[in-house]
Amino acid sequence: MKEPLKLGIAGLGTVGAGLLELMAKHGVSLEETLDRRIVVTGVCARNRDKVRGADIGHARWFDDAVMLAADPNIDCFVELIGGDEGPARAAVEAALKAGKHVVTANKALLAKHGMELARLAEKHAVSLNFEAAVAGGIPVIKMLREALAANEVKRVYGILNGTCNYILTKMQDEHLAFDDVLKDAQAKGYAEADPTFDIGGFDAAHKLALLTSLAFGTTLPADQIHVEGIQTISAADIEAAQSLGYRIKLLGVAERTASGIEARVHPAFVPEEATIAQVSGVTNCVAIEGDFSGSVLLVGPGAGAKPTASAVASDIVDVARGLVLPPFLKPVAQLKPFQRANLSGHYGSYYIRLSVLDRPGAMASIAKRMGDRGVSLESIVQKKPGTADAAAASVVLITHETTEENIRKALDAIEADGNIAARPQMIRIEEL
Amino acid sequence: MKEPLKLGIAGLGTVGAGLLELMAKHGVSLEETLDRRIVVTGVCARNRDKVRGADIGHARWFDDAVMLAADPNIDCFVELIGGDEGPARAAVEAALKAGKHVVTANKALLAKHGMELARLAEKHAVSLNFEAAVAGGIPVIKMLREALAANEVKRVYGILNGTCNYILTKMQDEHLAFDDVLKDAQAKGYAEADPTFDIGGFDAAHKLALLTSLAFGTTLPADQIHVEGIQTISAADIEAAQSLGYRIKLLGVAERTASGIEARVHPAFVPEEATIAQVSGVTNCVAIEGDFSGSVLLVGPGAGAKPTASAVASDIVDVARGLVLPPFLKPVAQLKPFQRANLSGHYGSYYIRLSVLDRPGAMASIAKRMGDRGVSLESIVQKKPGTADAAAASVVLITHETTEENIRKALDAIEADGNIAARPQMIRIEEL
Repeated sequence: MKEPLKLGIAGLGTVGAGLLELMAKHGVSLEETLDRRIVVTGVCARNRDKVRGADIGHARWFDDAVMLAADPNIDCFVELIGGDEGPARAAVEAALKAGKHVVTANKALLAKHGMELARLAEKHAVSLNFEAAVAGGIPVIKMLREALAANEVKRVYGILNGTCNYILTKMQDEHLAFDDVLKDAQAKGYAEADPTFDIGGFDAAHKLALLTSLAFGTTLPADQIHVEGIQTISAADIEAAQSLGYRIKLLGVAERTASGIEARVHPAFVPEEATIAQVSGVTNCVAIEGDFSGSVLLVGPGAGAKPTASAVASDIVDVARGLVLPPFLKPVAQLKPFQRANLSGHYGSYYIRLSVLDRPGAMASIAKRMGDRGVSLESIVQKKPGTADAAAASVVLITHETTEENIRKALDAIEADGNIAARPQMIRIEEL
Repeated sequence: MKEPLKLGIAGLGTVGAGLLELMAKHGVSLEETLDRRIVVTGVCARNRDKVRGADIGHARWFDDAVMLAADPNIDCFVELIGGDEGPARAAVEAALKAGKHVVTANKALLAKHGMELARLAEKHAVSLNFEAAVAGGIPVIKMLREALAANEVKRVYGILNGTCNYILTKMQDEHLAFDDVLKDAQAKGYAEADPTFDIGGFDAAHKLALLTSLAFGTTLPADQIHVEGIQTISAADIEAAQSLGYRIKLLGVAERTASGIEARVHPAFVPEEATIAQVSGVTNCVAIEGDFSGSVLLVGPGAGAKPTASAVASDIVDVARGLVLPPFLKPVAQLKPFQRANLSGHYGSYYIRLSVLDRPGAMASIAKRMGDRGVSLESIVQKKPGTADAAAASVVLITHETTEENIRKALDAIEADGNIAARPQMIRIEEL
């Protein structure tokens, strides 16, 4: 049998506790599989008193994650602290510099400092694995870095944030308003007290940054992702989507175009018959479209202690098996610079909802503004005002395919004309 | 840069040609990814004239696959010949014995001789990779052998045969009879002239055998899988399923039970709202339920030259990266003997369709026979005979959960009573 693999685990919150539980339960079976024992030789957490429940066996306690990371008695440092700076970053850097393999679930750290960490890992010929950083228990990193590595990826997209999908699903199923569902999600622990990071799309953008680099072999797009959240989605939009044969999902999409890579996080209309439309609640999914593989879709739990622990454990298994890969598909020197495609060139269909004032010629003027920009309409649905004296009617337009520039200019002109009572709602329709 | 990886490819049919196309298109990118060149140094096919179209570059031609397999100028033997004996088996054995890595798409060979081939691979410390053998472009082998390796799998199931799924989907969507759809599938090339291997469930059973070993860490179940095909499924069953909120799919299911592993291929009712119910046409899917990962579902193309070539290429990528794993999750010595759970103990709900003779007391007698065996009914739907003089009515029963033994004994008694005009139809309802 090979030498045991010695782990140092920093951070013993829910995921850390889940990992210890997994090791306790499946340690023997894993030893058979790997012909190698995995032992936890060191642990570190903020509050020693809090983790007394977890079985840390004979592991040595460290108060300082950086000390643990560089400890000569560990081979692999497991970072479950979180945060894109501070002790997580310092400890991961220390571990790599000390020639330790690193396994982390920290998407924020990787989205921000992934390139320099990958360079460090390569320099020291160690692993930097982060399966748990994207889509929890769904092994999408392994998919892109290994299983589909011989493909040219055309598009990768998915439902990458469980909080948003829970909210949108509940709004749809129970005909509720955004604010009410958000409160419910907060009460259930599916949304944070300050939910901005999730519902604003920023969490999904971190994950999409990692997927983009892995899918296209580019440097990380970091702050170059177009991000819109779900806070503008109203019950009227959800209802219109359903009546038109669509569902609204917060998607992360990265797509190869002639002018670069479109990387965007935003609510989107998806056809109700698409598999992704059925992905409900906190479940995540990721689809990868390779030129040879075709479209491969993965669906599974996007978060939670156990699925995340499973993903962390699979990274540890790879380390135990001696698999050391470039963290972002290719060695850093081979990664192409991320070239952003301007979203004004995005080509697709659009859903538009307007609150049109009850004036003679208003609709004609709106239709003309669309026509001026070459935007043709697939359907127009005008809803009568709810009450007799309402001054505006809700008008829903589905456009044929056009560029986002045309849409934006047409909407700007419509707003300037003063025939609408509120800012127009615009949601992209994703061709799946 | 590392030494090039030298491939010998035996079999240049559609998949072989797809692989050569992939290598020609993505060779440069793969070299960047792997820091290693992959070169085809030898090829072999039945008919040299037929493959003149494929670009085999400077590869040496071999008339004999075994000679190619043992050629000192190759590192990795790619077997795309097919068949569970003959040249495929001989060449794979020769390659392993000569210390060459083997990549194969041959599910029949592996289902039959997998254990002895795995032993050979282990003895010579080489890879035996077969991602393309199950579910085409869906990387399910990698999923089980690597990504979910730290889980105890509770159940693995899926739609493993595109021909059957195409037929069932078309029967459902176009309200056609089995025979008519089969003829259409044959005309389109989705079904063979002799379709028994596909529609009888045997192809799915080969794939399930491989999945079972990988999921549960057991020896291959080989001939110990319960197999039923789709040839008994009638338009009446499809229609009944739809009206009850189900779809009929040919499933391969392997499930851990108290008395062993249930491994079965058969048509099944699946709830229409389950994602798997939406998987239509020749698309395949596989779901893996791990105790930590939760349920992870993969959906993608189950066959075709390009997806299969993508899977073969991913196996080659693993070889190029030096990843050598036990072929069936654990080293052969660690695999537990496959312990078959008798299907009579299967616990679940059932769909039963009876052609009940128009006699006084017939339904009462049927209900009593069910009751005698402790089978309670969730629903009974009796359809009037199509014509006034029809002697039998179609009765559809959905049972509550019970054992298969109870169902079978109740149906035997019902048949013996002589109140039905044809053999009962029984289809398992799969809890998803």
